[in-house]
Amino acid sequence: MIRYHARWVLPMVAPAIDDGTVVVDGARIAYVGPRSGAPPGDDVELGDAILTPGLVNAHCHLELTAMRGFLEGLHFREWILRLTTAKRAVLTRDDLLDAARLGLEEGIRAGVTTYADTCDSGVAFDAMLEYGVRGIMYQEVFGPDPGQCEASMAELAAKIAALRSRATELVRPGISPHAPYTVSDRLYVAAAEFARANGLPLALHIAESQAESDLVGAGDGAFAPGLRSRGIEVRPRARSPVALLQQLGVLDERPLLIHVVRAAADDVTAIAAAGATVAHCPVSNAKLAHGIAPVREMLDAGITVGLGSDSVASNNRMDLLAEAHVAVLMQGVRHGDPTALDAKAALRLATIDGARAIGLAGRTGSLEVGKDADLAAFPVAGAAALPVHTPEPALVHAMHGRDASLVVVAGRVLLHDGVLRVAAPPGVRDRVQSAAGRMQAWLAEHGQAGALVPPGSPTR
Amino acid sequence: MIRYHARWVLPMVAPAIDDGTVVVDGARIAYVGPRSGAPPGDDVELGDAILTPGLVNAHCHLELTAMRGFLEGLHFREWILRLTTAKRAVLTRDDLLDAARLGLEEGIRAGVTTYADTCDSGVAFDAMLEYGVRGIMYQEVFGPDPGQCEASMAELAAKIAALRSRATELVRPGISPHAPYTVSDRLYVAAAEFARANGLPLALHIAESQAESDLVGAGDGAFAPGLRSRGIEVRPRARSPVALLQQLGVLDERPLLIHVVRAAADDVTAIAAAGATVAHCPVSNAKLAHGIAPVREMLDAGITVGLGSDSVASNNRMDLLAEAHVAVLMQGVRHGDPTALDAKAALRLATIDGARAIGLAGRTGSLEVGKDADLAAFPVAGAAALPVHTPEPALVHAMHGRDASLVVVAGRVLLHDGVLRVAAPPGVRDRVQSAAGRMQAWLAEHGQAGALVPPGSPTR
Repeated sequence: MIRYHARWVLPMVAPAIDDGTVVVDGARIAYVGPRSGAPPGDDVELGDAILTPGLVNAHCHLELTAMRGFLEGLHFREWILRLTTAKRAVLTRDDLLDAARLGLEEGIRAGVTTYADTCDSGVAFDAMLEYGVRGIMYQEVFGPDPGQCEASMAELAAKIAALRSRATELVRPGISPHAPYTVSDRLYVAAAEFARANGLPLALHIAESQAESDLVGAGDGAFAPGLRSRGIEVRPRARSPVALLQQLGVLDERPLLIHVVRAAADDVTAIAAAGATVAHCPVSNAKLAHGIAPVREMLDAGITVGLGSDSVASNNRMDLLAEAHVAVLMQGVRHGDPTALDAKAALRLATIDGARAIGLAGRTGSLEVGKDADLAAFPVAGAAALPVHTPEPALVHAMHGRDASLVVVAGRVLLHDGVLRVAAPPGVRDRVQSAAGRMQAWLAEHGQAGALVPPGSPTR
Repeated sequence: MIRYHARWVLPMVAPAIDDGTVVVDGARIAYVGPRSGAPPGDDVELGDAILTPGLVNAHCHLELTAMRGFLEGLHFREWILRLTTAKRAVLTRDDLLDAARLGLEEGIRAGVTTYADTCDSGVAFDAMLEYGVRGIMYQEVFGPDPGQCEASMAELAAKIAALRSRATELVRPGISPHAPYTVSDRLYVAAAEFARANGLPLALHIAESQAESDLVGAGDGAFAPGLRSRGIEVRPRARSPVALLQQLGVLDERPLLIHVVRAAADDVTAIAAAGATVAHCPVSNAKLAHGIAPVREMLDAGITVGLGSDSVASNNRMDLLAEAHVAVLMQGVRHGDPTALDAKAALRLATIDGARAIGLAGRTGSLEVGKDADLAAFPVAGAAALPVHTPEPALVHAMHGRDASLVVVAGRVLLHDGVLRVAAPPGVRDRVQSAAGRMQAWLAEHGQAGALVPPGSPTR
């Protein structure tokens, strides 16, 4: 038994504990409470730190970590076209794997223990196994042309079979039909049926951009000409992206809905009625200028909302406490009310609600006896964190996740005193920086003028 | 001569320099350019770091650092009443001085070399002298009752005389009539005349909240009943807070206007026509739910805009790179355009434009030969910063100011390799945390129910 002692312990499903202790027995939590009542064991003194459940990143793209800072100042369609094109033209599978490793190193240092990762290449699965974190890798599937549907599904089935054979207690596959501008109605229906038949979790990017809403609602907007030029029929498909999922029956599979920025009251009602969940990505949504998601409205409707960093291609960081901070600021602005989302609620989004949103709340997201021991500790010793009046605002508004001093997943220590305990391969940082150099060279030669590859092209 | 070498140098008034060098001769910059062309001197290798001008905080309240996290989830009027009441009831001058010291330690660690501080007690002046930073302390003056005007001005004149006798090349006084809900029209006019007669810079909180706009425009809103209960006449004073300053002639003094969230097109035009400047505080404005300032509009109108942290009572941090980050996110949301404010422009707000806004651009805010050597370096070695494609987005979107490895003011090293070189008195952190404990005890006993002291009460 290991006893982790900290000045503050935040179980998330119970009030904060001053001078608290979490006792870990193997992979599980055996005690959460005041230090004075803890059962015996070996002591780990975390000192003036805030001990929380390991943070849950409800949406990321680990394979894109080499794109941090590569796609600045671009409107959404240009952003995604340059992303797709550069990824195919420059980055090898090894590059993508190193990128995912660097992303996990960043995430672990920021106290993130669970990753809901949406991935095209599949490397996030390897990296998560390698680094010992918990996660779901939602295998992406593309195909805006209904004629691609069978080929896309065959490819998906093969990938899922391979992933399932390597799944562990910690790392499991899911599937992700990418977005309305890269997925036909046929493919949405087929993917949802496949998910149901195989008991796989489903995640999809939805209601993110104005361009997406224009495409779905009016058969128009920034994405329409490119699709038409590929011979794909473009017509109004539904009142809104969320309504499209509803009418196709996809919403009945209770998917994780990523973004949900452009959702009207009836969309929120539909999501709540279906029991679907949401991954809220406030920094990415603001940086790409999509807007502020109706988080307060979704919470009031009873929808479970987690927090996601999205990829560092649009963030440019993975720091769930910073995400919680920006979530509070944005909801304050949206509602003209400083109480619209408070620090405690934002921390719940980053922990227990995120775990619920991706179906892992039985294992992680809170400090409760019997749950897996997924822990993160954040020291408050720095001038920038002091004084601490109450721990939740200190974590969300004054500190940031990169301060983690301890990270534990299912009882295993991944980081302690700022030192990674993961047997990561050497040279990852240098290789990712080198890949960035090749991307810059490609950009200088081809990026501005060359033919851009739309996402979901059949040659992928 | 000292030669500071870094992987990237950002002069701010010229393009970024790869493998650049800044040479410092005494207090001044003697060279800015490629390493290969630098004159001889002693070498300081900053390695994989981004070397920038020292950051300029265009608005802070150092004396309030003990209030970090003390005023959460409050609407603006309750926020400011609790702030004022707790400050008077609990914090001694020594407490406020320690708070200012802790604030400067935080700021220096975040690369901030220049502080435009708005202060009631005067402790910020002492602390800035002690820590060796550059700054203007705008002495606050209050008085919503026109009958208080002479007494307020007499007190102000005495304080300014004392401050001027202690002014240095680095630290100078200014004056700050607080805000329309604490300053009568008479006091505004008297303070502006005093500033002009004494050659003092002027800074004022303006157009921050809806409550303020309601008071000025309609003689109504959250602040009106409290003023009336004190026998102070409340009536519509002007179309808007900015228009009030215009009609009183205060705008002609080209003050630093703090906040300017609620400014219509004619307000922006008036500010530009007068040549007044603006301190933009995006985190504070969002956290207090005031809204998003029209920064793009002000820049387009030719207004000089700097970035301020505001106090940590409403932020809860002093980190100008984080402020630049949130400024970009908020302008993206306000305009639905990811190019509304880019990382380069945001960095200018945090450096040269901030220096211009407070009238110190002849000395600081950019890396130029002949200017004072105010420098900050931010290492990019951490997983969270890599890869770096271009330095400006890395600084603004992936890193944060707390990463500073070197801070220099007028040639003097205040921080190197993360170690403060300032002869700060011992025990500051413990004493500020202890003051926070007394504030919590006061809050438990009096805070929710007791009589709250309005800001600008004559007993102060």
